[in-house]
Amino acid sequence: MQYPEPIAHLIDSFSKLPGIGRKTASRLAFYILDMDEGDVLQFANALIDVKRELQYCSVCGNITQDDPCEICADPNRNNEQILVVEQIRDVVSMERMHEFTGKYHVLHGVLSPMDGTGPEDLNIPSLLTRLQDETVKEVIIATNATAEGEATATYLSRLIKPAGIKVSRIAYGLSVGSDIEYADEMTLMRALEGRREID
Amino acid sequence: MQYPEPIAHLIDSFSKLPGIGRKTASRLAFYILDMDEGDVLQFANALIDVKRELQYCSVCGNITQDDPCEICADPNRNNEQILVVEQIRDVVSMERMHEFTGKYHVLHGVLSPMDGTGPEDLNIPSLLTRLQDETVKEVIIATNATAEGEATATYLSRLIKPAGIKVSRIAYGLSVGSDIEYADEMTLMRALEGRREID
Repeated sequence: MQYPEPIAHLIDSFSKLPGIGRKTASRLAFYILDMDEGDVLQFANALIDVKRELQYCSVCGNITQDDPCEICADPNRNNEQILVVEQIRDVVSMERMHEFTGKYHVLHGVLSPMDGTGPEDLNIPSLLTRLQDETVKEVIIATNATAEGEATATYLSRLIKPAGIKVSRIAYGLSVGSDIEYADEMTLMRALEGRREID
Repeated sequence: MQYPEPIAHLIDSFSKLPGIGRKTASRLAFYILDMDEGDVLQFANALIDVKRELQYCSVCGNITQDDPCEICADPNRNNEQILVVEQIRDVVSMERMHEFTGKYHVLHGVLSPMDGTGPEDLNIPSLLTRLQDETVKEVIIATNATAEGEATATYLSRLIKPAGIKVSRIAYGLSVGSDIEYADEMTLMRALEGRREID
């Protein structure tokens, strides 16, 4: 006997997620079987909505329901600073500290020769476009405190500085090797305050 | 900034699954965002189908699209033996060995005073019903080799034996391919107790 088709399909779907093997997938599928039908329908709709209702902001690359995103469209935010992060989740982490009032730019990755990620794979062209109208005075690079994050910061700095724009890097208030996603608000605030110009 | 609503809902849904905390849930939700739309729709449909198309077999408690299930409805299977397991996944494991030709009965749990699971919470009444027409000659109890599994086996045995039906328990011993050096004392003791003459 094989699993009935519906459960086999669900196991397949769960298996496609990162960090979930066949055993865990089958445990999750059987858990779904015993879940309240309303919760399962909500789950299914959430999956569809995420694909259908969300898009990347054409300005900053953040995730949004409307383009441009809430932050890019906010007239109360300072247009002179752009904080560059690796991923969308980093924007949420930065916003949690309620300290930064500028705009963001999401790279959707970092330079990583090991993984074959080069500059052409990152959301860099739209960043350069944003820098052309001379409103932006400072680009603050907030990539992770990893080798790849550092390399990306250096790369961006070399690309942007010739245009006469100040480029800074958030400080090593972050413990070396850690991810922004897991940092607490105080650490992030210190890191932002201690930023230094890249020469 | 909070996460946009669709992604927040998806994070909530993932968080409801066992063993998945908020961090993992948010990682999975963002992974969905980047997944192929076809795969996501398949996932959503699989969730709905599992709830809508599957039911428990009214005879044995196995999961099935049609009632009674494939195994209960199979005229080529032997009606004289019923193998009792804790959960649906155990039926699949047993069927994988292509050796057992009788029928199954799924308890949907084990007796566990710690978790408040008593006999009334298990799929026992329908097992007793199946034993009434005198077709069944042997009930093989294949609950797990845990304290709860043992207690459940003893309980069922006391319940069924007075009806004059043979009740057996699958053997304990070394798992195939394992070393005596690494086996625990309880396993060795059971392996020794269960020794059989070599002819």
